[in-house]
Order: sequence, then structure tokens, then C-alpha cells
Amino acid sequence: MTPFNKPYLSGKELHYIKEAVSSGHISGNGLFTKKSQAFFENKWGFKKTLLTTSCTDALEMCAMLLDIQPGDEVIIPSYTFVTTALAFVRQGASIVFADSRADHPGINEDDIEGLITPKTKAIVVVHYAGVACDMDKVMVLAHKHQLFVVEDAAQAIDSYYTGKDGIKRPLGSIGHLGTFSFHETKNIQCGEGGLLAINDERFLKRAEIIWEKGTNRAEFFRGEINKYGWVDTGSSFLPSELNAAFLFAQLENLEVIQNRRKEIWQWYNTHVQTLWGSQYDFTTPYIPAYATNNAHMFYLVFKDPEERTRFITDLKSKSINPVFHYLSLHKSDYYKDKHGGRDLLNSDRYTTCLVRLPLYYEMDFRKFT
Amino acid sequence: MTPFNKPYLSGKELHYIKEAVSSGHISGNGLFTKKSQAFFENKWGFKKTLLTTSCTDALEMCAMLLDIQPGDEVIIPSYTFVTTALAFVRQGASIVFADSRADHPGINEDDIEGLITPKTKAIVVVHYAGVACDMDKVMVLAHKHQLFVVEDAAQAIDSYYTGKDGIKRPLGSIGHLGTFSFHETKNIQCGEGGLLAINDERFLKRAEIIWEKGTNRAEFFRGEINKYGWVDTGSSFLPSELNAAFLFAQLENLEVIQNRRKEIWQWYNTHVQTLWGSQYDFTTPYIPAYATNNAHMFYLVFKDPEERTRFITDLKSKSINPVFHYLSLHKSDYYKDKHGGRDLLNSDRYTTCLVRLPLYYEMDFRKFT
Repeated sequence: MTPFNKPYLSGKELHYIKEAVSSGHISGNGLFTKKSQAFFENKWGFKKTLLTTSCTDALEMCAMLLDIQPGDEVIIPSYTFVTTALAFVRQGASIVFADSRADHPGINEDDIEGLITPKTKAIVVVHYAGVACDMDKVMVLAHKHQLFVVEDAAQAIDSYYTGKDGIKRPLGSIGHLGTFSFHETKNIQCGEGGLLAINDERFLKRAEIIWEKGTNRAEFFRGEINKYGWVDTGSSFLPSELNAAFLFAQLENLEVIQNRRKEIWQWYNTHVQTLWGSQYDFTTPYIPAYATNNAHMFYLVFKDPEERTRFITDLKSKSINPVFHYLSLHKSDYYKDKHGGRDLLNSDRYTTCLVRLPLYYEMDFRKFT
Repeated sequence: MTPFNKPYLSGKELHYIKEAVSSGHISGNGLFTKKSQAFFENKWGFKKTLLTTSCTDALEMCAMLLDIQPGDEVIIPSYTFVTTALAFVRQGASIVFADSRADHPGINEDDIEGLITPKTKAIVVVHYAGVACDMDKVMVLAHKHQLFVVEDAAQAIDSYYTGKDGIKRPLGSIGHLGTFSFHETKNIQCGEGGLLAINDERFLKRAEIIWEKGTNRAEFFRGEINKYGWVDTGSSFLPSELNAAFLFAQLENLEVIQNRRKEIWQWYNTHVQTLWGSQYDFTTPYIPAYATNNAHMFYLVFKDPEERTRFITDLKSKSINPVFHYLSLHKSDYYKDKHGGRDLLNSDRYTTCLVRLPLYYEMDFRKFT
């Protein structure tokens, strides 16, 4: 069987875990947490990053930092992972779901302004498949309406957006806050893990407090105050050094991993029409000129759900395991009654017609041809 | 230097981590998560347990399961870790802080009834130092007033309470829900980690959903439903298999660890008066007849803060590192204005007069004598 995913291993993960264990410090915020955060800050220029136990937790930190209160509205694409929305719901937000683009599963940037009300507090964009949303459009809107922007860059490590100013910026660094995932299915992974990137300096001090269970412990250990205590909301967001050590071994191999993934992605892009084009009607991923491709995902969008089902069945019979992806959140049991009935037709189309193909470091294509 | 804590290693932690990594599944809910949960269920008879990234996260799951809403009151001891309270505050609870006992830092069970109002929804007890609260008293009150009981058993693994019925029950199994911590400082640890024990069957199904980010994914994989989606609140509570593998290696060595810790605890109990009784005025831990001692902690309570400071300075000069513990949460910057001014004098006394002595598997007492 060619599985959908097989996690990459650099070979140094266990070595670094052993180093962490030998140091006697495997709770959070140790050497490998600092090394992983420094990697993000040095390579991509993030002002400050904090490792978390998941991207969900990083998104919950965003909701706290933006001081989301019951009644505040947050605009989020419907075609995304449950916790993109749930992290804000936990703080009391009302989610206003936006549709996807016709040419890409990312949020339709042109729909956002029509969803803004006096209650809107933030826009959360999701860089689907690691491909950038049109951040110039989003940031102009945010500035005009005084809204915060969170980039859910769960899939978007080492991917970039080139703005109208010609500057190429890493995804996650453009909005006020950005979040990443290191779940096993991601390009760089540690089983379960995430990271918060803080781009707006106003959030720096409070992020550290929220990360440390609502206490000013970090300031205390820097000698800035003489006792520490409970000063804010927060949670236990720090991952153990076991996870951070594993992660750092992967980060050190970023270039090797990315190059191999891009080769595989290109193989698909070159061959899918020849392989399946005569039997199926589908489109391949669209990468706008302002976006790079970090080869997180290769997907096909079929003309109808029946074609997708036929394709999945066909590939499974050849021992290849393609998988579909999100279900429109505005139609979920949890949110459909709160959504208000607006149709989000592209989101529904990706729900029923998109399929992801296997893409991992060690894969070969012998079964495909 | 004799540190305050040094994490125990069985020697099999890295072996099991390697096994998890080799299996290709290091995200959550894999083999070692199931093995660790089964250990709790088999050894101590918990109906159902779920591994989490921290005890904080297990407490947040409790707040969700009890459906805590803004305005609901939850009674919690003031002398506890920040997140015992913060987990409930995140769901909107108003915390009603209770004092500690005069003879023990645990909640004063006789104070609880006076704090109950029509808004009270739950009582959270903390088994400080792994020593049981008087659970008969607590459960009678809960039954009388129709309240839920959560046992914060963060420090209380392998510790027991013998009720008036003569039955010896493990801590965490008596209230409706119980929570454990596997932070590096605990008897059994994996750096950062926790566990939720579900004792009331009404919570079984929903706990699984909340654990899986508000989705009914578990039912889907058991074939009980034919698609899964967003159905409830929740978060990303699952730890990676790296943590679970490490934890399982420790659980397998529970007896060895506990025996050694109990020896150390007894050494302190036998020697502290001889060592320091002539110079300092302090009391040693009180263990009620209904409680066992899991040797999580050996602490002294001094007659005043100055004595404690003198003692800590004295021991540090001998390269021994004792540490104080919690600060009364009702006096914290975050909650003092919401508390309402009731004095909680025992909580304040433990805040200023209690000190914990080093206690870990490998320690020796040569520096002490």
C-alpha cells in the first residue's frame, strides 16, 4: 500500500531526544524549544515565536491576545480545519464563515468586505496547501476597518507571498499573528506540535504570559520583577522538550525535505493528465503569481462528487491511498444553526470534489505508472 | 548542589520512543497512548481515561464536560496551581475560593457548605502532596446540593482514600471526574503531560468528542457513524506518542519509583527534628487516617515567614535547594478584585511559611548530616 502520508525522519531525532533527556530538563521551554524558536526567528525573521503543543493551541493564544469577547465577530473560511474556528469560539466569538475562491480553496478575499460589521474584530486567513492568500487585499481591508489579521499557516512553513511592493515575505509574518502546525502530516513535524509567531510588537509581553499559564514567570526569571503570580488568562501551551528536540532535528533538514517534496509535487503536476486525464475531469492546483509552492499538498478537484468517488475507488484498487479533506464548517452540526443560511458554494464544492494525493519524502511512483 | 528535583529515568523511555518512531505513528492516540490509558484503567479501575498534553488540559476538559457557563460558580481552594482555577475561568466560571485546613494545605472541607449558592455548579478539590481530602464529606455535600466534584489529583498518582464504608479507593476515582499531571516534577512524568479520568458514565461519549477537537472522529473510526464532523466544543488535547511512550516506561516502573520515594520521605520524617528542630519551629506533614502517602512531597510549615527565609538561606549555603510553593490565588493580581475580600488565613500561611524539600529517586542525604 502507498499510504497517504509517511512521516520523514532525519535520523537525528532520537539523538536530540536523548540529549534532552540526559540534560535532566524535558518539561517545556528548555534548550530545544529555544533552538527551534531561534530557527524560525533567524531564518524567516519572525520577531518572536513561541512553541506550542499544537496549531490549535497557537490559535487559542491568538484568540486570547486579540481579547475576543462574546459577541465579537471573526471572519474565517468555512473550508478549514475545525479548530481554526473552534479556537475563537472558545473565547466566545461568533464565527462569520466566508466562501473559498473559485480557483483555489483559500478564502475568497473579495467576499470579506461584505461580511464586515461593526462587531467584526478579526479576519483569519488559511493558506491552504501552503499557498498564500492575497495578503495585500486582506491587509488593506484590515487597515481600513481596523481589524486584526491572523494567518493560519498550519500548512505553510517555508512558503512566501510577494506583495505589490515587490517584497517576498514568509507566510505567517504578514498578519498581526501567525500560527504553524507540526502535526505528523506536515512538511516538518514532531507528532503533535505548533508555533505562534508574533508580528505585532504590542502582543509580545502578553503572549509570554498567556503561554506560561497566565503568570508573569518569564519576567520573574529575567529578574524584571521580584515575585511572580497569576496576572492574566492563559493555559499550559508549552510542549515538552521531547517534542522540541524531535522538531529541531527536522528543522535542520528543512532544505532536504523541501527539495524532495517539490520534486514529488512536480512529478504529479507533470504526469496527472497523462495518467488520469482521459478517464476523469479534474483541475490541478492553481498557484497565483504572488505565491510560492511549499509542496505541502498535491490535490485534484473533480467535476462532481461521483467522479471523486470513482477515482478514490480506482486508486485504492491499485493500493494507493488518496484522501479527501475538510467538510464545510458552516454546515457542521455544531454551527449550521448559527450560520444563517448563506450559501458557500465553493466551500461545498471542495468538500465534495477535492482529493489529496500521497506526498511524502520516501514515496516512489512505481505503482502509479 | 542537591537540586529540588531530578526526573527519574527507567532506562526504557528512549527504547519505547524509538519503537513509536519506527511504527510511523507519533501523532496522538497511538499504541503507547492506549497502553498508558489501559495501565490506569487496569491497575486502578478507572472506567475510562484519556491522555492529555497537561493536567491543565485535563481540567479544561472537565470545565467543558460540566458545561460551565458564564455566571456559574465553582468552589476551589485558593492554595493551588494557577490553572486549577484558570481552566474553569476560561469557560466563564466565577471562582469562589475556599481556605485550606489548619492541619493540611488541602481544602477545608468544613468551609465548603457555607460557600454554596444557587449558582454553584462544582467543587474542585486538590489532593495536596498526594494526600486525600476527606472525600466522604465532599461527596455528601455534592449529593445534597446536586453539585459535580472534580478531583485535581495532579500530585496524587497511586494514592488512596478509605471511606467510612471501609473501601480504599484510588484518588481521582471518587469524584465525577479526576485529573493527573505527568509534569517533570511528578512521581511519574513525561516532561509535560496529563490525564483525565472519567468516573461518571454520563461523560464518556462527550469526553471522547471534546478530546478529538469537538469532532465525532472516534465514533467514525469505530464504524458507528458514516462521516464525522464538528459537533461540540473541544480542543487539541491529545499528546504525541513521543510523550506517551516515555510515560509508559515510567508507569511500568511505578512500584520501584514509589518504594524509593517512600524511603526518602520516611528518612525526612525520621530525621528533620534531629537535624533542624533545635534551630527552627516547624510542623511536618499531617496524613489523616483515611489517607495514604504517595511520597510526592515532603514539606515543612514554619511558624512565620522569617523562619522560612532563614531556613532556605541556611540550606542553600549547604548546597541544598528547598523551594516554596503556591501563592494564594484569591490575592493574585488577576483575581483579587473578583474575590470579595474574605480572609483565607490558612492559605496565606502556607503561601508564606511552607517549604518543600528535595525528593527524587536518586537523591542521597550525605549533605544533610
